[in-house]
Amino acid sequence: MKEIVFVTTNPGKMGEAKAIGAEYGISFVQDEYDVFEVQSNDLSEVAIECAKDAWPLVKRPMIVEDSGFFVNALKGFPGVYSAFVLKTIGNSGILRLLEGAKDRSSAMRSAVAYTDGKETKLFTGEVKGDVSECCKGTTGFGYDPIFIPQGSGKTFGEDFAYKNKVSHRAKSIRAFCEWYSKQ
Amino acid sequence: MKEIVFVTTNPGKMGEAKAIGAEYGISFVQDEYDVFEVQSNDLSEVAIECAKDAWPLVKRPMIVEDSGFFVNALKGFPGVYSAFVLKTIGNSGILRLLEGAKDRSSAMRSAVAYTDGKETKLFTGEVKGDVSECCKGTTGFGYDPIFIPQGSGKTFGEDFAYKNKVSHRAKSIRAFCEWYSKQ
Repeated sequence: MKEIVFVTTNPGKMGEAKAIGAEYGISFVQDEYDVFEVQSNDLSEVAIECAKDAWPLVKRPMIVEDSGFFVNALKGFPGVYSAFVLKTIGNSGILRLLEGAKDRSSAMRSAVAYTDGKETKLFTGEVKGDVSECCKGTTGFGYDPIFIPQGSGKTFGEDFAYKNKVSHRAKSIRAFCEWYSKQ
Repeated sequence: MKEIVFVTTNPGKMGEAKAIGAEYGISFVQDEYDVFEVQSNDLSEVAIECAKDAWPLVKRPMIVEDSGFFVNALKGFPGVYSAFVLKTIGNSGILRLLEGAKDRSSAMRSAVAYTDGKETKLFTGEVKGDVSECCKGTTGFGYDPIFIPQGSGKTFGEDFAYKNKVSHRAKSIRAFCEWYSKQ
């Protein structure tokens, strides 16, 4: 079993990574450093800068992950500030901003940055879908209850197993595992 | 005339600072470095970290300023992410989120961080007020058209002269000028 540190304070993300890592013989070990995130509209930049900031604290091969929910009718809001927006106006705020909107298209995006202090690598994932008309489902976290991935009739909050197959983070974590398992 | 560099890309902030600086014999010189802002819920922390990041690029006594609009019914949203929120959901988004809200209380806050490479100092300002029912006024920028300061019947967007007397940034810039003029 190969180990990798996952710097995150989010147990939900950790659970998703562990489930995927198991398929590749990779064990994710949580480290809860709460590193500064730079304010940037670029998720990949946020992840890479975070990894660089976390390295002196961790000093072991590690990943950080940043993700965001991008609603097209809201010009990409809440985007990289998804965590803050969730804590303040929440899912109900997003639904309110979209009341009467015809275009409910959106995307969830994830960027995983790996570093071993010398090499830094980036793995990304995206899933497109629509914002639901109301909150549905109790599994998952974040925007899961209002996001319906393309090709599904259910929100991520209603179908965790499906989420962990097709989600933005499933894709980025899987891409990382594919690469890391060969190192 | 004493000079000080103001690191900002915002001409509106620059204009406000110049008007106040003139009263103190202080000349603000704009420098447009677009420094990374850390993601933090603390405005003062953002300003101080920005000043530290900008110092190696500027290498002259300088200030940076960060400000935010904090709506109580929205748990402090948009807060330190005011600039991003303005670009995406805008003033109309804020009004929509507050439709039917009884509590429209809010505050605008500003933090000015000064550094000369050795010493770092912080100056803050706040103005309380209410979110208007609709956008009013064409002067100013940002959330000015929807913010009515306490004791006034007009938005900041309707009364620029009054804004530059009582605003959050007027207070923080003035506090800086009071101190700097004695150095």
